[in-house]
Amino acid sequence: MPITVVGSIAYDTVKTPFGERERMLGGAAVHFALAASFFDDVRVVGPVGDDFGEQQLAVLRGRRVDVSDIERIAGGSTFFWRGEYGWDLNTRETLDTQLGVFEGFVPKLSERSRSSDVLFLANIQPDLQRDVRAQMPDARFVALDSMNLWIDIARDSLVQAIGSVDCLILNDAELRQLTGKPNLVAAAREVLSWGVQSAAETGMRGPSVIVAKQGEYGAALVTADGFFALPAYPLETVIDPTGAGDTFAGGLVGYIAAHPGEALTDELLRRAMAHATVLASFNVEEFGTERIERLQGKEIVARIGELHSMTQFSGAALGLRA
Amino acid sequence: MPITVVGSIAYDTVKTPFGERERMLGGAAVHFALAASFFDDVRVVGPVGDDFGEQQLAVLRGRRVDVSDIERIAGGSTFFWRGEYGWDLNTRETLDTQLGVFEGFVPKLSERSRSSDVLFLANIQPDLQRDVRAQMPDARFVALDSMNLWIDIARDSLVQAIGSVDCLILNDAELRQLTGKPNLVAAAREVLSWGVQSAAETGMRGPSVIVAKQGEYGAALVTADGFFALPAYPLETVIDPTGAGDTFAGGLVGYIAAHPGEALTDELLRRAMAHATVLASFNVEEFGTERIERLQGKEIVARIGELHSMTQFSGAALGLRA
Repeated sequence: MPITVVGSIAYDTVKTPFGERERMLGGAAVHFALAASFFDDVRVVGPVGDDFGEQQLAVLRGRRVDVSDIERIAGGSTFFWRGEYGWDLNTRETLDTQLGVFEGFVPKLSERSRSSDVLFLANIQPDLQRDVRAQMPDARFVALDSMNLWIDIARDSLVQAIGSVDCLILNDAELRQLTGKPNLVAAAREVLSWGVQSAAETGMRGPSVIVAKQGEYGAALVTADGFFALPAYPLETVIDPTGAGDTFAGGLVGYIAAHPGEALTDELLRRAMAHATVLASFNVEEFGTERIERLQGKEIVARIGELHSMTQFSGAALGLRA
Repeated sequence: MPITVVGSIAYDTVKTPFGERERMLGGAAVHFALAASFFDDVRVVGPVGDDFGEQQLAVLRGRRVDVSDIERIAGGSTFFWRGEYGWDLNTRETLDTQLGVFEGFVPKLSERSRSSDVLFLANIQPDLQRDVRAQMPDARFVALDSMNLWIDIARDSLVQAIGSVDCLILNDAELRQLTGKPNLVAAAREVLSWGVQSAAETGMRGPSVIVAKQGEYGAALVTADGFFALPAYPLETVIDPTGAGDTFAGGLVGYIAAHPGEALTDELLRRAMAHATVLASFNVEEFGTERIERLQGKEIVARIGELHSMTQFSGAALGLRA
């Protein structure tokens, strides 16, 4: 099923213990689209400035991503982020954020983008997420990402936005912050209860799938039916975590989109989590989009097999004392 | 195979968001022994004071733990720890530590304790760990735990102690601190290389199994053959994490001890990791040793099955775009 993603298209200047890069192609919608494009058609909606060139569009087009709803704002500057990571890559400091064309951005979806069956609302102001969601009432699967900033300054709108989607993808610390519940399972169940409530009150589907991103520790999935967790694919060298979460989301949502004939069971979601994990692992191996640009399907297949073998154990043979 | 554990026997006063308890039975050797006792014979070596009573010994004896090498020091006080956990249980503050009889402790192993095939060196001063290791040169499997304090003030001795054991069990942050390597896989491989070096120089086995405890995120296993990771068993309510790491170690080492006929393959180690994870999950459900005291073998079996089903995914079916 075709996927529409709404979110940031950006230039990132990043410093990690392994080096630095100036004004790389980045942004949540870009990382998401490149990952999801391995699975299905992706349409990107978002603004760029005059400084966004053919070279950047070519990266997306090279993965057959539909860029016709990337809106170029005359006289504007593309969203810019500059940050630096600490020695273990688990902390990062934002040194500069320039909203540029994102200031005053109103998402405009073409007929084509609105017709997608799958929608990913990347991390943007929750009012905009709700606006886009309203433009695609018939989407079969909708997922949403957000961040601590919006929990801090626009929580009510964010909770409403979450109430209108099928799947919430959030860092585990943010899931705790959002719900005020320190326990991951309790926090996820709280959001699932919003879904049940939303369905009862409005007749609309609310969230039934909660994915907690746990950085280097992997990710967990909570649904009404159960719990699943996967470690991150182990890498001896991680170069740049920027965009890992959006690449993860692209793998997850892309995999689901590519299986339209399957019900949204935990079994399907687990396979989607594995593909998300593997896509994210490639993303962090090099700066920005460098690795994913070169990535081949057969590399994904091989790493899925490795991840599978790294997480299996025999549930049988015990050996308790008599 | 019988297991000898050397480590602290303590009274813990603990405050968590869910309540507090005064002077509970605790200590690394106690938590380890109670967990390992589900799998094999356990002999505890460590000092207590006059304040350590029959009631506490009865808890251990109730699990058929051999307490004859628990040395009562006349006029001394049992090791005491008081601490408080933060709202999400991921941080804790030590409010008081009284070494008591641990000051000047010299481990004395009876002939019986020395004859065990398996040895667990719980977190104590690394010189003492080496002393005990030297008293059991023929042990078939030796595991060691430690903490940041000893990395800070006795690193050389700790590195020597690690060089003399088969298995290092450490919190992931401590593994990073120990090796100076921020990446978990790189840090574990560094310690494995000490094992290879030790074997070449002294002819003795060095560490071939590295287990990184990751708290609420679970644990990872690194050997020369590969990588394995398991999430923690998900609990909606965690009451008291005290002793979780030692209970984990007890499950791991106990399971290995209970399978003397099997080579120390990754397959065996993975099953041991699962049992360790399950034992630790019971430990944190209540204060101190309360839950483990009541725990039954069939509950372990049931939860192993659940953990298994929570970590499986189909490694097949892909769905990449042509």
